[in-house]
Amino acid sequence: MSKRHNTTLKELALALNLSISTVSRALNDHPDINEKTKENVKKLARQMNYSPNLFARSFRSQKTNIIGVIVPNISHYFTSTILKGILEEAEIQGYRVIISESNNSETKQTEMLNTMTQFGVDGILMSLARKTTKVDDVLRTLNRAPIVLFDKVSQKIPCTQVVINEEEAAFNAVEHLIELGKERIAIIKETENSYNSEKRYAGYLRALEHHGIRIREKIILSTEDISLIHGRRLTNILLSMKKRPDAIFAITDDAAIGAIKALNKFKIKIPEEIAVVGFSNSASSKIIQPELTTVDQPGDKIGRTAVKYLIDEIDSPSNNIITKTVEIKTTLVVRDSSLRA
Amino acid sequence: MSKRHNTTLKELALALNLSISTVSRALNDHPDINEKTKENVKKLARQMNYSPNLFARSFRSQKTNIIGVIVPNISHYFTSTILKGILEEAEIQGYRVIISESNNSETKQTEMLNTMTQFGVDGILMSLARKTTKVDDVLRTLNRAPIVLFDKVSQKIPCTQVVINEEEAAFNAVEHLIELGKERIAIIKETENSYNSEKRYAGYLRALEHHGIRIREKIILSTEDISLIHGRRLTNILLSMKKRPDAIFAITDDAAIGAIKALNKFKIKIPEEIAVVGFSNSASSKIIQPELTTVDQPGDKIGRTAVKYLIDEIDSPSNNIITKTVEIKTTLVVRDSSLRA
Repeated sequence: MSKRHNTTLKELALALNLSISTVSRALNDHPDINEKTKENVKKLARQMNYSPNLFARSFRSQKTNIIGVIVPNISHYFTSTILKGILEEAEIQGYRVIISESNNSETKQTEMLNTMTQFGVDGILMSLARKTTKVDDVLRTLNRAPIVLFDKVSQKIPCTQVVINEEEAAFNAVEHLIELGKERIAIIKETENSYNSEKRYAGYLRALEHHGIRIREKIILSTEDISLIHGRRLTNILLSMKKRPDAIFAITDDAAIGAIKALNKFKIKIPEEIAVVGFSNSASSKIIQPELTTVDQPGDKIGRTAVKYLIDEIDSPSNNIITKTVEIKTTLVVRDSSLRA
Repeated sequence: MSKRHNTTLKELALALNLSISTVSRALNDHPDINEKTKENVKKLARQMNYSPNLFARSFRSQKTNIIGVIVPNISHYFTSTILKGILEEAEIQGYRVIISESNNSETKQTEMLNTMTQFGVDGILMSLARKTTKVDDVLRTLNRAPIVLFDKVSQKIPCTQVVINEEEAAFNAVEHLIELGKERIAIIKETENSYNSEKRYAGYLRALEHHGIRIREKIILSTEDISLIHGRRLTNILLSMKKRPDAIFAITDDAAIGAIKALNKFKIKIPEEIAVVGFSNSASSKIIQPELTTVDQPGDKIGRTAVKYLIDEIDSPSNNIITKTVEIKTTLVVRDSSLRA
């Protein structure tokens, strides 16, 4: 391994008194960065002989044919379907995979990034810990090995990001309820502004607006923990209202199943009185009675796609750090919870 | 690191023309090995200055505080509950965890064992790939780092093994059906002689015998793939019989849920006409209608216990390779699928 010093993004950032992500975006002509800044950054980059990934990567130690994966919660159903896709595609491509969990802690995430790079993985696939704010550690790793983000992503990290079309998926789900004739459509979402929850909420709002339906704050409910128990609890609140909703869109299947349990308990007719739509097409969505209409998130395809992009980058390191978003299409699976009898 | 040569189990085995597992068991006074063999093995071990783990381990490189985990299928529900326990306990004890999947392939399992040891993990937790027969690779790894097995284990590997009391759990489940007054109790099990399926089947047989109930070959059904679909298919076969069973014990929740789906379709009263009991207390077991009586397997506790035993061994390497089985207690969770109305 060469001892030659590679100028890092961080050194450029320090020299210019800018954030690392600003420097990175300036180098990649990101529209958010003004022209003057871009010019300054590019000039210094030339002077300091900065060459991003290509440089750092060509001096990395030998290939190990190992991909590292970091996820917030390994036991999460959707995550496990993505992992399945990752493992299958990596197997086909002749890569071994090691997986670790950040447990939604940013500290732990950094620790695992370091562990993975010390181990000399050829590249890293990562779904970000909740509330990941300091992306410096991730950017540092990006100087040493390619990273592809999936599911929980951040525009602050210049790399390929594989996600589902959350907003459109939610739009389609809510539009489906509107087409059934529903007009008072409640949403059960997360309190915290997670990437997924925000996008799905945006899709909900856009569908209502698009169809000229008034947005009613009272039936927009949020919970910290978007689980079966809280789906049931919030549905009980909806049922206690003077004017009940005629449909519930829950941004997870767990919460939607909780909603159905509450409706079943009070013998509310589903979907005639209140229709229910969930999100993720979990195994349980086919087990609950009535079966749940839900957005099918192709976890397998997300995993496979992320591996393909990562291996492309491993095989031909690019000169540029580019934020590229790859959207995987979802489909709405219509079942009895929203089917007219 | 010392360059001193450590005599391995394999070298002893080759010199004596015995299998590695025989040598290991002879050194540990396993009752299956005859006295003459034990004497020969111990004599040569002394001559070759063999000292098992203590030796090999004291010359290992520095501690990394990383535990490696290898499981057959990372997306499996029960596995994910065990992983949760492993991750939580490791976190408490200050260890990082990397996880990999053997995909039930013995070749891949060996590959991951090698990857983990190259990485210098302090110890390995492993649930064996189906049909693991050649344990030499595992024994070789055991010379370099401690291993604790869990869930899918093998008596051929001399180490600590953490399992649930499969046989007793099945016995209790079937006895519960007998106490309900059921007499024609069908079982849905795996065709292949997996450790878990065999133990559960043994518990079923013992419960029937213990209560003087005749064993009826016709209602002992097996399937390659113990899934919801095949649970439903085999239940349809049971329903087509002239004399139907009055209860079904399925050795997985998935198969039991398939059974309930088939019974619901034909409007068979559960549990009055046919009661159903599953195994594993999966999330779905509380979602199916009627809710499923099932054996709660405390995956979390299995994971935590395995980590504790492994760290004990990491901290104080033992002179002996001992096969020790630690049984974790299960409980039967009685729900509507076997509750008298």
